[in-house]
Amino acid sequence: MPANLSQSRYNQRGVSSDKGDVHKVVDKLDGGLFPGAFCKVTEDLLTNDKELCNVIHSDGAGTKSILGYLWYRETGDANVFRGIAQDSIVMNLDDLACVGIWDQVVLSSTVNRNARNFPGEALAALIEGTEAFLQTLAENGINVKSGGGETADVGDLTGTVAVDSCAVAVCPRDKIVDNARIRPGLSVVGLSSCGQSTYETFENSGIGSNGLTSARHELLSSHYREHYPETFDPQTDLQYVYCGPHRMTDRLPESNLTVGEALLSPTRTYLPVVKRIVEELDQNLLGLVHCSGGGQTKCLRFGTRVHHVKDNLFPIPALFKEIQGVSGTSDEEMHQVYNMGHRLEVFCLPEAASRVIELSREFGIDAQVVGRTEESQKDDGGNHLTIERDDLTLQYG
Amino acid sequence: MPANLSQSRYNQRGVSSDKGDVHKVVDKLDGGLFPGAFCKVTEDLLTNDKELCNVIHSDGAGTKSILGYLWYRETGDANVFRGIAQDSIVMNLDDLACVGIWDQVVLSSTVNRNARNFPGEALAALIEGTEAFLQTLAENGINVKSGGGETADVGDLTGTVAVDSCAVAVCPRDKIVDNARIRPGLSVVGLSSCGQSTYETFENSGIGSNGLTSARHELLSSHYREHYPETFDPQTDLQYVYCGPHRMTDRLPESNLTVGEALLSPTRTYLPVVKRIVEELDQNLLGLVHCSGGGQTKCLRFGTRVHHVKDNLFPIPALFKEIQGVSGTSDEEMHQVYNMGHRLEVFCLPEAASRVIELSREFGIDAQVVGRTEESQKDDGGNHLTIERDDLTLQYG
Repeated sequence: MPANLSQSRYNQRGVSSDKGDVHKVVDKLDGGLFPGAFCKVTEDLLTNDKELCNVIHSDGAGTKSILGYLWYRETGDANVFRGIAQDSIVMNLDDLACVGIWDQVVLSSTVNRNARNFPGEALAALIEGTEAFLQTLAENGINVKSGGGETADVGDLTGTVAVDSCAVAVCPRDKIVDNARIRPGLSVVGLSSCGQSTYETFENSGIGSNGLTSARHELLSSHYREHYPETFDPQTDLQYVYCGPHRMTDRLPESNLTVGEALLSPTRTYLPVVKRIVEELDQNLLGLVHCSGGGQTKCLRFGTRVHHVKDNLFPIPALFKEIQGVSGTSDEEMHQVYNMGHRLEVFCLPEAASRVIELSREFGIDAQVVGRTEESQKDDGGNHLTIERDDLTLQYG
Repeated sequence: MPANLSQSRYNQRGVSSDKGDVHKVVDKLDGGLFPGAFCKVTEDLLTNDKELCNVIHSDGAGTKSILGYLWYRETGDANVFRGIAQDSIVMNLDDLACVGIWDQVVLSSTVNRNARNFPGEALAALIEGTEAFLQTLAENGINVKSGGGETADVGDLTGTVAVDSCAVAVCPRDKIVDNARIRPGLSVVGLSSCGQSTYETFENSGIGSNGLTSARHELLSSHYREHYPETFDPQTDLQYVYCGPHRMTDRLPESNLTVGEALLSPTRTYLPVVKRIVEELDQNLLGLVHCSGGGQTKCLRFGTRVHHVKDNLFPIPALFKEIQGVSGTSDEEMHQVYNMGHRLEVFCLPEAASRVIELSREFGIDAQVVGRTEESQKDDGGNHLTIERDDLTLQYG
């Protein structure tokens, strides 16, 4: 069975796309005010106002920072970490966007570094990248401020650097987008993860900050294994370590980008678009899903008695095609790990779909109805997902 | 020069107590509303109220998590990570306490783990430890809630686990304790870092979550080097790796604790005491310093035209004595890295000192006037510090 074989290949690197043991622990915790929402939403402890609620969220660049590190070591260009700062921030902001929060957000960052390998100039680039990205957001009407951060010298914990952020907001309860409202009969509009939006300065490959452990090892060659032992887990069988064909400077097939540029493409934020969508759609908007960990299957966790059907997905971006091509990863797993073409899903009444598409395109981001929600076909009414793409049919849940 | 020799020994492990290159980068950033305060305090973006301000703070357990990992591997007891959760939280809360915030705090945690080495049961202990510690705080009138967290499987970034937290508060501007008010003529009351407070269930060794890289390698023996290569930076010269005499099960000299228990002693929070001190002292309170990174020299960064004089310090706790004894670390460096007896300093009018001591002792925490502030003796009026202990005189700044 190729699917299982491939899943095993993924697990060989000590990561899992479903984080089964994490969910087993975390799912026991109190779900907050809106257990079906994309982020945990809690009572307003910060100002003690019954009309308000608090959202605090943590996430980071994950192992994408290692790609930044490799680039930095190979080229001496510390500016690559400006993009890593953006990755860490957007992984938080675009999650917050999925509960309808895009403004008045305060964030903080944590850098756990090996000070020998990640020196002051690299740290400076992270901080400059943070400020520059927040400036870009401000120019698009999105008010996010950094309230500080922490840099820890922990060379015994990491050979390179881990970059994480935390974002917090206080918001009226009646403004929360609650994905529990996702129900049968809706249109699903996908917002493309690639191309170049009006607020980006380079073409985006479509990669976010998920699946980078796998992408890095599958695409990059043994050159990196030989020269940068600090960038992989020595417990991983060497056959799974940097076992791909490419140097970062290689041209990515069917793309204007090099492999390194494509892998390091900073995670796109959808905030400027989400702001417009939430403001305009109001009750016609039923839910928002950031296709982060879990990729195209992320939607499975959201909605009530829903069969998610996606039968009109975007063409697969060049980077994901190349990952699949060189690794032989199954279609099933590719859609579980990567966004495969759109990283944001808008669940809306069918009559509102065309407006969502228009709004997205105003920002230079392609959008289309990628699917719909139907009644769950499971006896227990649980959510499930069907993906149809060309001759392919994938079932999840 | 033993001091330099010793400093070099510390740097050999890829860490620095002064984080010079970090400050060089960070000190350029906007200092916020109260640039002299212990934490960065910003305008209230969260609720947009001119009377309020926001504080967001990030810190973590640092390499203390590695001690938890070693304990877990040797004993199979995952509950050790309950203490690590407390470490990560207190490193934030006790910093916030130093700007006068002890209540209505929301926090979030990030766990960057090697899923092979740090499995679900260890993660469960971290989460249970968080909930249990917040419950203890609640029983002492301190209202802190966890709003969620993130667990990332990043085996290429770490062989073990990094545990970080972020804490946020919204607070009236006129309630902020601003350490810029620290001026000549004040008493400095130190609150002991060891013993057992009324709200602790075990004796505390006095260690916080600073200096643990050094303490671990100086105290623990080559047993750990041989068995746990995932717990140290392979770039460190082996002569500096686990080069001490002890197993974690050894009795710590002059103590009821084992070496492992002493090193893993969860970071004490001073919040219940700070709450009482801030409430009672009001204008008699001029500043609060958490002796975290920088140890007894942390105060140098705070106050205006101040010569900090500490000439009545607590006796050195057994754990710090043993670290110094086995490593030959200089007195100068010991006081730069470790708290050496008290982890919280209260700067107050001399007539208020006895009340601070009483309040602290009500919680079973010993306290005494450890020093005073005098006029700066430097030409530029900059802060400096003199520590006198027995025949020893140390000068900093």
